Amino acid sequence: MTAVDVRGTRTDLPAGGFHRLCVGPLDTETGGHLPAVELAYETWGTLNAEGTNAVLVLHALTGDTHVAAHRQDPRTGWWDELVGPGRAVDTDRWFVVAPNMVGGCSGSTGPASPAPDGRPWGSRFPFITLRDAVEAEARLADHLGIARWHAAIGGSMGGARALEWAVSRPDRVAGVGVLASTAHSSAEQIAFAQSQAQAIRLDPQFRGGDYYGGPQPEAGLGIARRIAHITYRSAEELAVRFGRRHQGEEDPFGTAAGERLGRYQVESYLDHQASKLVGRFDANAYLTLTEALMSHDVSRGRGGVAEALRRFTGRAFVAAVETDRLYLPAESHELAALLPARPQVHMIDSPLGHDGFLVHYGQVAEQLRQDLAL
Amino acid sequence: MTAVDVRGTRTDLPAGGFHRLCVGPLDTETGGHLPAVELAYETWGTLNAEGTNAVLVLHALTGDTHVAAHRQDPRTGWWDELVGPGRAVDTDRWFVVAPNMVGGCSGSTGPASPAPDGRPWGSRFPFITLRDAVEAEARLADHLGIARWHAAIGGSMGGARALEWAVSRPDRVAGVGVLASTAHSSAEQIAFAQSQAQAIRLDPQFRGGDYYGGPQPEAGLGIARRIAHITYRSAEELAVRFGRRHQGEEDPFGTAAGERLGRYQVESYLDHQASKLVGRFDANAYLTLTEALMSHDVSRGRGGVAEALRRFTGRAFVAAVETDRLYLPAESHELAALLPARPQVHMIDSPLGHDGFLVHYGQVAEQLRQDLAL
Repeated sequence: MTAVDVRGTRTDLPAGGFHRLCVGPLDTETGGHLPAVELAYETWGTLNAEGTNAVLVLHALTGDTHVAAHRQDPRTGWWDELVGPGRAVDTDRWFVVAPNMVGGCSGSTGPASPAPDGRPWGSRFPFITLRDAVEAEARLADHLGIARWHAAIGGSMGGARALEWAVSRPDRVAGVGVLASTAHSSAEQIAFAQSQAQAIRLDPQFRGGDYYGGPQPEAGLGIARRIAHITYRSAEELAVRFGRRHQGEEDPFGTAAGERLGRYQVESYLDHQASKLVGRFDANAYLTLTEALMSHDVSRGRGGVAEALRRFTGRAFVAAVETDRLYLPAESHELAALLPARPQVHMIDSPLGHDGFLVHYGQVAEQLRQDLAL
Repeated sequence: MTAVDVRGTRTDLPAGGFHRLCVGPLDTETGGHLPAVELAYETWGTLNAEGTNAVLVLHALTGDTHVAAHRQDPRTGWWDELVGPGRAVDTDRWFVVAPNMVGGCSGSTGPASPAPDGRPWGSRFPFITLRDAVEAEARLADHLGIARWHAAIGGSMGGARALEWAVSRPDRVAGVGVLASTAHSSAEQIAFAQSQAQAIRLDPQFRGGDYYGGPQPEAGLGIARRIAHITYRSAEELAVRFGRRHQGEEDPFGTAAGERLGRYQVESYLDHQASKLVGRFDANAYLTLTEALMSHDVSRGRGGVAEALRRFTGRAFVAAVETDRLYLPAESHELAALLPARPQVHMIDSPLGHDGFLVHYGQVAEQLRQDLAL
């Protein structure tokens, strides 16, 4: 049963809120410059006086700050089963912070934000790496009075950022939690990302990235999302769920004037996924975050993956989805074997593929709590 | 050593030739009409007087008629190790025929061919199914005096056509050879095909399919090829071959005016694959054959896969590539289990993924010879 107080606020939810903070100018790793970066973030629970009970939760590519419901925003979040009163990340004990990554479009400074001339950055927005994102987030931690996160946790791109936090600032992270993510982006991930980026740039409405004020490059972004979504799922799941079935009354064998008219169910499903993303995401932000994720490599300038990971001697939690064909379980094993904490790799048993980390993550909640002493 | 005769013709190669035949008008399965279909085909060896030593070899999506070298065209073919004197398909004994599929662009009638009004078919070219292709090829067999193929063999889309031949005309096929192919296209294959088709159609140069006389939709076709090529390979192969290495002196972290300048090796590799295909393939033909392949389903109108496959009681050879993630070995096992011949599934041990059927097929040549009594 949902408990509500006299003003209709759900009292079973933790205190929380959505905030914005300007963290100042940012000189990016590759020589770009943003004169003022604003970070959007959500919080749950209360920071203790010593600032020692903070947990950082980092979103995936198209995720946002809304990890879990709180009193000010009771919508279900993307890791709702993990964060809340009595949950693995117990908001009665932990102060949880979830920033939107710089370059995104869910409240933080990104390509759709105004540049100093008042026009959107568009094509002028600099190439961002995950290290740039961590630098901005470190300033947020400074502002909040968090010298050290008890844990930094994320899945997919969020896991990559958590790992980059741990390796670049081992003194500021006591434990790292990495779900369905790896020490560096792989050739295959780069390959699929390239097709996605090119599809967006091919859209005539993209106009080199300066499409604001006109129509969005929806078709290109939609294709990118379709490609990505297939890689987030497993062939087996698509086979069981859709097979070769036709969409409703549509007939993929029906034609007129040489054109195939009807769709298979799986096409309709991907159209729906594309349309959902296009309605909530900026194409330039998708490009910026995709290329940031491709830049992910904890070893860059640090003498190799083993040497980079050796920097972080804190607690570690690693989980993989058994059927993930984008972030391979074997890569999670490689990561775990090189982390000084030598964590076990917890397997999420899900038929979904990569998206299992957003759907069946509850399976490893208790292991997360244990491995990170939450 | 290469043997040549006095005119410089290689005498170690079989007799052979490239031909074209008009097989008449074609009413397509979905109600389209082509008033005259021309099929291009190559042959090797000599048909015996009884017409009983004929073998049909069918190409994959972007393949063509040039299966193997012959005296008139000594270029290496795509299954050169399989077809020739002393090879598994011994051209001293067998008369080999390889047609280009209707709808393609390697000599047979396709969207770039002139319609009755003299202009290219373009957007008016009808939706083609693999059954339409087999109907056209059956007329070619009639013309050549081949009442029954000793074997019909192919890989990927070629395997799908071979299987459709066997199921639709069991009296005309004594043995079927299916490499890296399945009884029907899967949800995942349809999904990846959709993205590819949409990328081509998004290209402003596509102009609804009527781009002849102007620039080709090279960018769109290139993206389609990149997506396809990734699915033809394995994540492991890409990781070992390219990893995160940069292309030559290019720097993926180098930027100017906000744009990432350099490429990873895997991006350059895919650019090269795209560019090679764009130079030799028509975008409309790519769309036509891709949608034809998605239509592949031996069970359509035949009461299910098991019942359809029960129609073909001849010899069968089935092979899969261990690392294939587009045509899953499990699907080859399902196919083999439902074929009355109950063939063993021969595994091609290749790190490449699907493309192993074009590279490491020599591993199963002897099994092909045995299973199909070649």
